[in-house]
Amino acid sequence: MFDQTGPGRDGAPSSPGAPEGPLSGIRVIDLTQIYNGPYATFLMAQAGADVIKVEPPGGEHTRRRQRDGGGVHIPHAMLNSGKKFVMLDLKTAEGKAGLEELIRTADVLIENFRPGVMARLGFPVEHLRELNPRLVYAASSGYGTSGPYSVYPAMDLAVQAMSGVMSVTGFPDQAPVKAGPAICDFNAGTHLYAGVMTALLERERTGRARTVEVSMFEAIYPALASNIGLTGGEGGGKPDERTGNRHGGLSICPYNVYPASDGWLAILANNNQQWDRLVTWFGQAWAATDPRFATMYDRVVHMDEVDALIESWTRDRPKEELFRGLAAAGVPCAPVREIAEVMRDEHLHARGALVEVDHPLFGRLVLPTSPIIYEGLERTIRWPSRALGADQDEVLPERKAQE
Amino acid sequence: MFDQTGPGRDGAPSSPGAPEGPLSGIRVIDLTQIYNGPYATFLMAQAGADVIKVEPPGGEHTRRRQRDGGGVHIPHAMLNSGKKFVMLDLKTAEGKAGLEELIRTADVLIENFRPGVMARLGFPVEHLRELNPRLVYAASSGYGTSGPYSVYPAMDLAVQAMSGVMSVTGFPDQAPVKAGPAICDFNAGTHLYAGVMTALLERERTGRARTVEVSMFEAIYPALASNIGLTGGEGGGKPDERTGNRHGGLSICPYNVYPASDGWLAILANNNQQWDRLVTWFGQAWAATDPRFATMYDRVVHMDEVDALIESWTRDRPKEELFRGLAAAGVPCAPVREIAEVMRDEHLHARGALVEVDHPLFGRLVLPTSPIIYEGLERTIRWPSRALGADQDEVLPERKAQE
Repeated sequence: MFDQTGPGRDGAPSSPGAPEGPLSGIRVIDLTQIYNGPYATFLMAQAGADVIKVEPPGGEHTRRRQRDGGGVHIPHAMLNSGKKFVMLDLKTAEGKAGLEELIRTADVLIENFRPGVMARLGFPVEHLRELNPRLVYAASSGYGTSGPYSVYPAMDLAVQAMSGVMSVTGFPDQAPVKAGPAICDFNAGTHLYAGVMTALLERERTGRARTVEVSMFEAIYPALASNIGLTGGEGGGKPDERTGNRHGGLSICPYNVYPASDGWLAILANNNQQWDRLVTWFGQAWAATDPRFATMYDRVVHMDEVDALIESWTRDRPKEELFRGLAAAGVPCAPVREIAEVMRDEHLHARGALVEVDHPLFGRLVLPTSPIIYEGLERTIRWPSRALGADQDEVLPERKAQE
Repeated sequence: MFDQTGPGRDGAPSSPGAPEGPLSGIRVIDLTQIYNGPYATFLMAQAGADVIKVEPPGGEHTRRRQRDGGGVHIPHAMLNSGKKFVMLDLKTAEGKAGLEELIRTADVLIENFRPGVMARLGFPVEHLRELNPRLVYAASSGYGTSGPYSVYPAMDLAVQAMSGVMSVTGFPDQAPVKAGPAICDFNAGTHLYAGVMTALLERERTGRARTVEVSMFEAIYPALASNIGLTGGEGGGKPDERTGNRHGGLSICPYNVYPASDGWLAILANNNQQWDRLVTWFGQAWAATDPRFATMYDRVVHMDEVDALIESWTRDRPKEELFRGLAAAGVPCAPVREIAEVMRDEHLHARGALVEVDHPLFGRLVLPTSPIIYEGLERTIRWPSRALGADQDEVLPERKAQE
């Protein structure tokens, strides 16, 4: 479906090795840090934008983590491919002048400081507009720039608690638990990227350059749709909000994670046909017609028995064998993969979602490309992240990196 | 910071009650279902696009859920605000002709069928291009349209297992557990929206209309950055991947969820200053200088003692009181809110992230607006979702809804 070698913009053939991305010619000044903002600008860089990452002396937070050794440099490498690196001390007049110079040349300025920091640095939104009326300015934070919580500190853990994510994650007889990935950070970053694209599209069509804001707290709310649907928003007296790995509404069965000989397997059957396929694949066709399990209603009523049966069929077999067999038979399922398995996954590598590169700072690494695939654009990281200030001479030739 | 009543496009004042969104004038044909695609088109509708939701006879999956009663209609209402509703049976010649008519007028066609369904319906990408060379065509699925897993069924539960999300969620002495929200669905939908905006921006600048693809499996990978950083991608021999509510790298302390008299509270302290503020607020200033807790290293070594101490301070007080006091003192923290509390949250309502509306089909409801805030655009749902085929006469006056 996707032609990786199609024509470049305006129908002209693109030169091999230098594909034109959809954002070619868009310049982004990137003041972001950690995950939320840097993921937004990662998506921009991978789509071909000219992203100038401006870091403080010592480098952005994830870059400094590398001093701890181990794998802690990997998040920095994952999120900063394809960017250019300059260093400015925004607390000095020289640093402020450098940022002003960059803003005048830019299409986008993006940051995820706590609300108020940009103004304290001398860059309130009015000053940004003076410097560049066509600038799209985008900001993200935990709770946003207005409202009663805007003054409170927030990080992914806090937003997972505040937003209800923890309340619906975990087993009913256990404490609430956070989702393992930093979903509130990354989810906000994706919305932030999307908001910038929307504003740039409008600017192209009408000349208007709107400011864009995304808060982590607000951006995760829609993902709770099923959970909200279960309780009707009424809370007390309704079923416990945490259902472990069972269906959030306890109305689909089987729907759970089952033990395999070497790990775990998620299996669900949305209808009688999938239930038939499941039991038949295990050589247990009798279960398709057993009156305890004949319909979804019957299976839900006998949920503990269904789960015990499936467990007895899965627990002595390897999870990958179960996955390949059941999935090929049309049963929705997947092995519970550990991180190391995901990083070696054949599908992700075959599709170019993950690439293995020799990183100039960190050696051999597996890195993600953009999850957004554009027809005709090679899936690649463009280039790996570089040292602090590595592109100072090209981007700001008059201004030396200050340390 | 955000002026809710600014000028409309081209600088002309927008009429009150009918604000021009950044996507005014963009027409989207929406074949999507459940969460992934419908969230993408929800974001488009809220930004002012003309979104035509094309449903099969009987309605899209989440609409049919309403027959079960309770709160199950809420997800449909949450994700379909501001769209127009037509019904076409794409298995009939009449339905296909209706879709062709719509495609000729559209900027975007978007779907999240399983790979191959569009071609089987008679709409392979070549035919779409014939009908409308300027069309941006966007597709999303569990594993994407290519690669070894593309033929396998997938849903949010399966992708959470396959991607490693489950492996890093839960307590180390418990089974892996899914993140409660449908994060793989919604995360893919946000990337899909972003990809469409990027492609429309390029089309506006160069005339080229690229096809866009997003898979759920690939889109969640970057959010595992911390978890990948912890293990270095090496797996075996590394610390257990699941750390419950403690820090994923077990290198920040305190960082956990603690019992309150009426629920739970997430608290973290990233540095000595925050630790000082925390213990001082509880009237336990001695703990700031106790040699067991003086530095982050000391606290990490004595993690069980730190957690026990904080628990002894929190467990007899209400979570909201703890949150307001500690947050105002500059300690990152948040109550573990239940869904019902989140839906009534004063901050979300004050900012217009949630609005309470009289829904024509479902009565009084709390619904989300777009999490992407555009300067000058009122935060609103534009209009609530409507009945199947409600806009047939306006959108396709020559073609009656077929039932």
